[in-house]
Amino acid sequence: MTTKSPLAPKRFPTLPEIAGVKLAAGACGLRYKGRSDVMLAELAPGTVIAGVFTRSLTAAAPIDWCRAALKKGRVRAIVVNSGNANAFTGQVGELAVWDTVKAVAKTVGCPKNQVFVSSTGVIGEPLPVERLTKALPRLQKKLSPKSWKAAANAIMTTDTFPKGATRTAKIDGVTVTLNGFAKGSGMIAPDMATMLGYVFTDAKIAQPVLQKTLRAATDRSFNAITVDSDTSTSDTVLLCATGKARHKAVTSLGDPRFKDFRRALEEIMIDLAQQIVRDGEGASKFIEVTVTGAASTTAAKTIALAIANSPLVKTAIAGEDANWGRIVMAVGKAGEKANRDALDIKIGGVQVAMDGLRKPGYDETPVALHMKGQEIDISVDVGVGRGKATVWTCDLTHGYIDINADYRT
Amino acid sequence: MTTKSPLAPKRFPTLPEIAGVKLAAGACGLRYKGRSDVMLAELAPGTVIAGVFTRSLTAAAPIDWCRAALKKGRVRAIVVNSGNANAFTGQVGELAVWDTVKAVAKTVGCPKNQVFVSSTGVIGEPLPVERLTKALPRLQKKLSPKSWKAAANAIMTTDTFPKGATRTAKIDGVTVTLNGFAKGSGMIAPDMATMLGYVFTDAKIAQPVLQKTLRAATDRSFNAITVDSDTSTSDTVLLCATGKARHKAVTSLGDPRFKDFRRALEEIMIDLAQQIVRDGEGASKFIEVTVTGAASTTAAKTIALAIANSPLVKTAIAGEDANWGRIVMAVGKAGEKANRDALDIKIGGVQVAMDGLRKPGYDETPVALHMKGQEIDISVDVGVGRGKATVWTCDLTHGYIDINADYRT
Repeated sequence: MTTKSPLAPKRFPTLPEIAGVKLAAGACGLRYKGRSDVMLAELAPGTVIAGVFTRSLTAAAPIDWCRAALKKGRVRAIVVNSGNANAFTGQVGELAVWDTVKAVAKTVGCPKNQVFVSSTGVIGEPLPVERLTKALPRLQKKLSPKSWKAAANAIMTTDTFPKGATRTAKIDGVTVTLNGFAKGSGMIAPDMATMLGYVFTDAKIAQPVLQKTLRAATDRSFNAITVDSDTSTSDTVLLCATGKARHKAVTSLGDPRFKDFRRALEEIMIDLAQQIVRDGEGASKFIEVTVTGAASTTAAKTIALAIANSPLVKTAIAGEDANWGRIVMAVGKAGEKANRDALDIKIGGVQVAMDGLRKPGYDETPVALHMKGQEIDISVDVGVGRGKATVWTCDLTHGYIDINADYRT
Repeated sequence: MTTKSPLAPKRFPTLPEIAGVKLAAGACGLRYKGRSDVMLAELAPGTVIAGVFTRSLTAAAPIDWCRAALKKGRVRAIVVNSGNANAFTGQVGELAVWDTVKAVAKTVGCPKNQVFVSSTGVIGEPLPVERLTKALPRLQKKLSPKSWKAAANAIMTTDTFPKGATRTAKIDGVTVTLNGFAKGSGMIAPDMATMLGYVFTDAKIAQPVLQKTLRAATDRSFNAITVDSDTSTSDTVLLCATGKARHKAVTSLGDPRFKDFRRALEEIMIDLAQQIVRDGEGASKFIEVTVTGAASTTAAKTIALAIANSPLVKTAIAGEDANWGRIVMAVGKAGEKANRDALDIKIGGVQVAMDGLRKPGYDETPVALHMKGQEIDISVDVGVGRGKATVWTCDLTHGYIDINADYRT
């Protein structure tokens, strides 16, 4: 384990209990010695589930299983292991998922298609599944509504801190709670589910509504972050709603009573997504990129991600260099409409370029000062329309090379 | 200037004279002290020209000019400066190109639209054009059919060695010569013209045929390399044919007499493109990625580039780690059809994975040895069709971060 990221939050937040959710974590020795590597969540009967998964075409076996199970939209248990991704393991990998599902269903006492499985870690090594299944009775005994931090710890791989967040919302005047935890520090890329994230709530929401809401919130959170443009074969976000809160069920997306929940869900997911960026492998700076004036929201996001993914932009920021020429370059390569001669660029709120060239009388002093900080803001207006998007990333440092040139050995 | 790349060729090749081509290089103090930074090529009357340019939507002013001039397809002079890209310089930049073109046309005595201009270096700084134009008479006096290496040296920026190549071909039994030089070491990405490259020949080829041939050869050479997936605003490849060789003109692409020339052009361009990769910023290993079994040639290239551009693959290779799991990941994120359960992967000619999982009895010893070398071969069969493509890249090392986190300061 490497040192804790300098961008980590001060502490893991206190997550309250959520009616219908119990968690347990333990060590089953899949890969790591002396640390927990498996997490079991048990959900009350009647809990509905929504999910978003990697768009990788070499997705791992657990993803295939979850996609199929999601069709019923019900969940009683989620099991997650770290240390071995059970990816690119062929039929053996599918059998490992099946053995896990059978064992969990038996332990919890539920139908197999209400069991969801995630695995994260090394690709291409067979998962020693019996170690995992043997640990299940022990985990079941430990199930508790309080074990949020333990669960967040158990799913980490190269993460340097556990990631958790909590929010509340009002539905019909009733307070509902949302708790979430996530993992991820490399292989983080946009437009795929990009990591492991689990959010739980006691709100009562119809499954199709939950699914649509999760998809939209993912686009503005986990799909708006990037560490290295790489995409894992195992990325998963699951949202479980136990329905234990005492309000009338939400059954339509447009229901005005649902608005505050959507706000809270987006907030908690952005919080978790930003924590992943803050734990980006080797990250020394947290970067927010906002693009305005694009032809559409999608175009704005494409341009913002081209900036956020550019190795030249990311290394310049690592070097505390306000190299806005590289931002221009990244805008150009994005392939979306931009008016070169109307481009405006702000760094740390200070205008550095306007109307397509360096601002007359530009003084680098305040910008240089901003570049020395840990939180870097880049705003670009591309001058063609009203599309707007914000994405988050981190810088590209020697630390990234250190971690990734020596991960498996 | 950093140390010469460990992957550099032993020496700059000897380039013979080409009838109708004269070159000169000099120092006009645009940015660098004590090194040449401007190159002038003078072509005999009647020379035709083909060109391929960056697809960047924030292309620099010289690109706009060249695109317009190319419509006539004739060339008498090319002037290239290094140290300042004249990009993102607005109207001032356009005027700088115009002043350069006027001065060159006067010096050489030719129409303005037969003058081509390239600039490479820092973005966003106004080009001190009078320094360049003042140097022209001096350059004209120095014009010589022998100055190939001097020209290749003058166009370098962060390059650590000049890049040149030569080939011959037969047309109608007459030997024609092709000479080329290029620059580029970072901001190299696929599917755009990706760097500066100039190829000259004495062959007699109709301009439309020359243009189509250049485009096709670019796709298999300069557009098949990648250093960091970033794309410059100034990328240019120009091909000039003086027509001084004593064969009957080639006027159709399908002409069988033209086949050997196309072979030679592709060879010289691949040679130059590979030299650019060998000078990739911080490169310690040269990597060839071949993808077979894809749905089409385009799909194969997309997958090959996804592997070649993956920071996780490139850092693994820097760490001499045969981490084929990351290759699987990159295949998956490419978004092209691949059969996960039929994937075959070879590293250094040794099968590491077959039929979608680690090869039974896989012995890492020979692969580990291959990873310690300077030339890394990766072959992937994705098991869906007959599409095939090869691309070249280099590894991602601490050197890349060193160079790019401290380039402008």
